[in-house]
Amino acid sequence: MAQFCETIKIGGRGQGKDAVFLGKGFPVLVQTMWKDKLTADDIEGEAGCVLIDRIEKLACMGCGLLRFAAPDLEAAQILGRLSEMVPMPLVADVHFDYRIALRVLDFPIAKIRINPGNIGERANVEKTLEKAGAKGVPVRIGVNAGSLPKDLRYKVDAGEIDCAEALAQAAERELAVFEAFQFFDVLVSVKASGIADTIKANRLLRQRTNVPLHIGVTEAGPLVAGTVRSAVSLFTLLREGIGDTVRVSLSDTVENEVIAAREIINAVAESRGLKPRGVTITSCPRCGRAGFDVHSFTRRWMDRLYTERKTATIAVMGCVVNGPGEARHADLGITGVGNKVILFRRGEIVKMVTGSEADAAFEEELEKL
Amino acid sequence: MAQFCETIKIGGRGQGKDAVFLGKGFPVLVQTMWKDKLTADDIEGEAGCVLIDRIEKLACMGCGLLRFAAPDLEAAQILGRLSEMVPMPLVADVHFDYRIALRVLDFPIAKIRINPGNIGERANVEKTLEKAGAKGVPVRIGVNAGSLPKDLRYKVDAGEIDCAEALAQAAERELAVFEAFQFFDVLVSVKASGIADTIKANRLLRQRTNVPLHIGVTEAGPLVAGTVRSAVSLFTLLREGIGDTVRVSLSDTVENEVIAAREIINAVAESRGLKPRGVTITSCPRCGRAGFDVHSFTRRWMDRLYTERKTATIAVMGCVVNGPGEARHADLGITGVGNKVILFRRGEIVKMVTGSEADAAFEEELEKL
Repeated sequence: MAQFCETIKIGGRGQGKDAVFLGKGFPVLVQTMWKDKLTADDIEGEAGCVLIDRIEKLACMGCGLLRFAAPDLEAAQILGRLSEMVPMPLVADVHFDYRIALRVLDFPIAKIRINPGNIGERANVEKTLEKAGAKGVPVRIGVNAGSLPKDLRYKVDAGEIDCAEALAQAAERELAVFEAFQFFDVLVSVKASGIADTIKANRLLRQRTNVPLHIGVTEAGPLVAGTVRSAVSLFTLLREGIGDTVRVSLSDTVENEVIAAREIINAVAESRGLKPRGVTITSCPRCGRAGFDVHSFTRRWMDRLYTERKTATIAVMGCVVNGPGEARHADLGITGVGNKVILFRRGEIVKMVTGSEADAAFEEELEKL
Repeated sequence: MAQFCETIKIGGRGQGKDAVFLGKGFPVLVQTMWKDKLTADDIEGEAGCVLIDRIEKLACMGCGLLRFAAPDLEAAQILGRLSEMVPMPLVADVHFDYRIALRVLDFPIAKIRINPGNIGERANVEKTLEKAGAKGVPVRIGVNAGSLPKDLRYKVDAGEIDCAEALAQAAERELAVFEAFQFFDVLVSVKASGIADTIKANRLLRQRTNVPLHIGVTEAGPLVAGTVRSAVSLFTLLREGIGDTVRVSLSDTVENEVIAAREIINAVAESRGLKPRGVTITSCPRCGRAGFDVHSFTRRWMDRLYTERKTATIAVMGCVVNGPGEARHADLGITGVGNKVILFRRGEIVKMVTGSEADAAFEEELEKL
């Protein structure tokens, strides 16, 4: 399977749309998936502005690709119209009915995802690929442990092969179909909710094909559990050079999915001694010694810091025990000392203010960075 | 340094106190640290009951050890009294003033932590160890990158040694002091906010000593970032068999710290093909297809599920695409299908109910597990 593209181009169709490249030689791309059903009202008037702002904010946070479920033809139409309204490359997630894929392809949609396990007969796949090919739109083959082809599921249940092997085989089988249709503009994902299955399936697939890989743990769980499960799985894979785009699936907001994904990618960089991109927040857990409420300060500044395009380490500390020591290494640090708040820049105290002046002083120093 | 204890006993002093063992041959212990200043009012009357309940809940979640800052003698006294009121082993975190350590040792406190970088002259350490030894209370040497001894900090700044080496040397130096005082009932932690430093410092220390290790990333950050940074660092270490007790430091609640720590420990078990302990929640991220609000259901049930002492996998799914497929493997699963909610037990549909009946039906099935 050597003829598949090692890099693919996503988006760039339509006015004001930048293309995003993904795969060999390009940075790992962060993506997320919209949580709610998109209605016609969501993209009109005031609601439309709110939606566009939120998508723009996701872009600032580091999200490079945004997927929406397109459960029916009406949803496909609405998503298509939205794709004309925002610079963010949008992806349509299509199940069961290939006609939905055909419909979204009439719009500047950047990518489509199909689950070959439920899209029906080969002719449906062929029609989809024909139109996607004509439009230059890449397709992701998204294989999930929960919807394996029946024969592979049977083999897993019978103990003949493990889940990871079944996921890899299901992906390879679909790639062969795509190859037969001479469609090479493709990504693959093999997702399971298990950590070991996720890691092994992706390793197998990387050994067997050069197709760009979308990696993620499916149904990873609520915020904390899902972040842990995704972090250990994806960090392991990315450290091995496996994975071209990352989606962290959480039973939580898209913003937290994007923050988790970028933190995982930054953790890989940091573990290699490289500088992470964007703002890294170093903040203390707070304890009985704290004179400064680190929790509420970080909560209040989180959005601003994560949408900041500067690369910097910001330290938010509660007290003198660790505060000044750590903040010394940060590009900007804020620490409570008694009733006062101290601001540091790379080891130098730049200001001492009262608690109520802390936000304004921090804002001012942040601007200067 | 072979004579240090490879396992240590924590707690068990005082009525109703169970001892906890930690180190070689024992499971990795989850711990957390209280976020607020403890006042005399917190342990009296109604407030006292609330506090005791919350600590009991932490125990149910898997927390085996709870630390409190004791910034002054009054705080030491209050903490000491609290240690008489709860079965949970409590740890006193002492900085700057060794007399605080002496005071808490008058109560059934389970462990004390000192930061040798700021406890002052050797005579203070000696007095502390003498009393701790007489009471059978283990001591943690907690070395932080932010408060390294001056000569080691100088060497790091001069580029002679790296931060990890400085942390390990600072710990070794203190261990030598403890050894000279014939005090062997000790744990060590070397903490940094960097992932690479944390991993390397603990590896160095493990190579050089057999002392039980408390591991954690200090000032790891807000909830998502801190969970990612802690997960990748501690997962890496625990996979190598390094680490006897874990504290995840987040600018967030103690409950989330405990959930993160247990999920990291469970991820290590799962990656080795072992069954994790407690409830594992497999839940979908929700999307435009969802007929069932996974986010609010998991939020509503989170506390109950994480304090459940059963070992089980619970799947919470939003729709038919992944839902039934995944829920089939769970001990109990709940999935939205159109306007209805389906409950599964190991692949068998046990109930189909309306959305408003979902909680009661779930409760009933959970009881049966």
